[in-house]
Amino acid sequence: MNSPREYSAGRRFMGRLSPGSDLLQSLQSFCRQRGIAVASFQLIGAVRSARIAFYDQRHKKYGELAIDRAMEIVSCSGNISLRDGQPFVHAHISLADEEGHSRGGHLLPGTIVFVAEVDVQELLGEALVRTPDQETGLPLWKIEP
Amino acid sequence: MNSPREYSAGRRFMGRLSPGSDLLQSLQSFCRQRGIAVASFQLIGAVRSARIAFYDQRHKKYGELAIDRAMEIVSCSGNISLRDGQPFVHAHISLADEEGHSRGGHLLPGTIVFVAEVDVQELLGEALVRTPDQETGLPLWKIEP
Amino acid sequence: MNSPREYSAGRRFMGRLSPGSDLLQSLQSFCRQRGIAVASFQLIGAVRSARIAFYDQRHKKYGELAIDRAMEIVSCSGNISLRDGQPFVHAHISLADEEGHSRGGHLLPGTIVFVAEVDVQELLGEALVRTPDQETGLPLWKIEP
Repeated sequence: MNSPREYSAGRRFMGRLSPGSDLLQSLQSFCRQRGIAVASFQLIGAVRSARIAFYDQRHKKYGELAIDRAMEIVSCSGNISLRDGQPFVHAHISLADEEGHSRGGHLLPGTIVFVAEVDVQELLGEALVRTPDQETGLPLWKIEP
Repeated sequence: MNSPREYSAGRRFMGRLSPGSDLLQSLQSFCRQRGIAVASFQLIGAVRSARIAFYDQRHKKYGELAIDRAMEIVSCSGNISLRDGQPFVHAHISLADEEGHSRGGHLLPGTIVFVAEVDVQELLGEALVRTPDQETGLPLWKIEP
Repeated sequence: MNSPREYSAGRRFMGRLSPGSDLLQSLQSFCRQRGIAVASFQLIGAVRSARIAFYDQRHKKYGELAIDRAMEIVSCSGNISLRDGQPFVHAHISLADEEGHSRGGHLLPGTIVFVAEVDVQELLGEALVRTPDQETGLPLWKIEP
């Protein structure tokens, strides 16, 4: 691992996102309001519709997928760190339909909550900052040894 | 987020569910025996068979799926809170077959453990209570500001 | 649950695995270098290619699957405990392609990182040791009451 950073446990929040809200943006607003700069989270629930993405590693761009139907949130987890000076949520999500068949990827804005039960663990320590990474084309943590 | 509650870390348990036991009920019994009222958990392992559900958001009822075969537990996570005065486990699960193809949803009783390695983080603070929610038809946390 | 063990929180690490590294081995090397004997972790990211497995519960052996293409890591979680006296990572992973279709299973060496953002929670307490388990044919935690 590339010189990982050590953190201590901050506040821990359990809560629910509102039906009809944007999953990613509502989680991000919460973090910005509470001044949560580094965190790890997981959530389960269901969505009314979803927007997810797959990163094309060769062409260095995201392809987007629209899932315009109700799905269970089988898993959704990720982290909060700083991007452009603001708390930024990076989340991946797995969804399932009424046959249990799964689709998943990188969570985009535009995914609408039906129910979402969230567990957020704030982490205290040095700021974790996303900056453009040339090799991957993604905004990644730069962690110097 | 709807006025999330803040918790502090309680006991942390690592353990294994017994082969042949009911995944959901055996996790729930553990929480009831140990007096764990609020918690977050994750587990990996494999099942002999599974019962999962998809919530029909329009008709407000669960449709059930039976998977009568061995599957890997790719992920299983969720939370413990109080329902009808007792610790209650809410879990979503993702399963995979020998081709890696995935099916997932809301975990039901009747899912039988082959192996399950569980990590339970108890949370200490105000009780988190499920009550009937009219808008969704589900038993949800009522968290007043 | 089979007499779970109680742990307290140790160090918490947030970091990134290097592009081109072996996901499982690089996480395991990190744990060995830092002397992490018991831990729980989760990560998200993407892989260049993957090796996963499905455990044949009847014949007590793993069947392996090669996925020789880029995939998103929708979820990847598991634990660290001791096997043959060394920190050993047990992880399950869910992957998705550009249509969001998912494949998952038990993570094997040979899965190559494109990006991986890791959250590792060290746990302090009694050693958690894997030993051969006759009933399942797997190296499992033996936890005496």
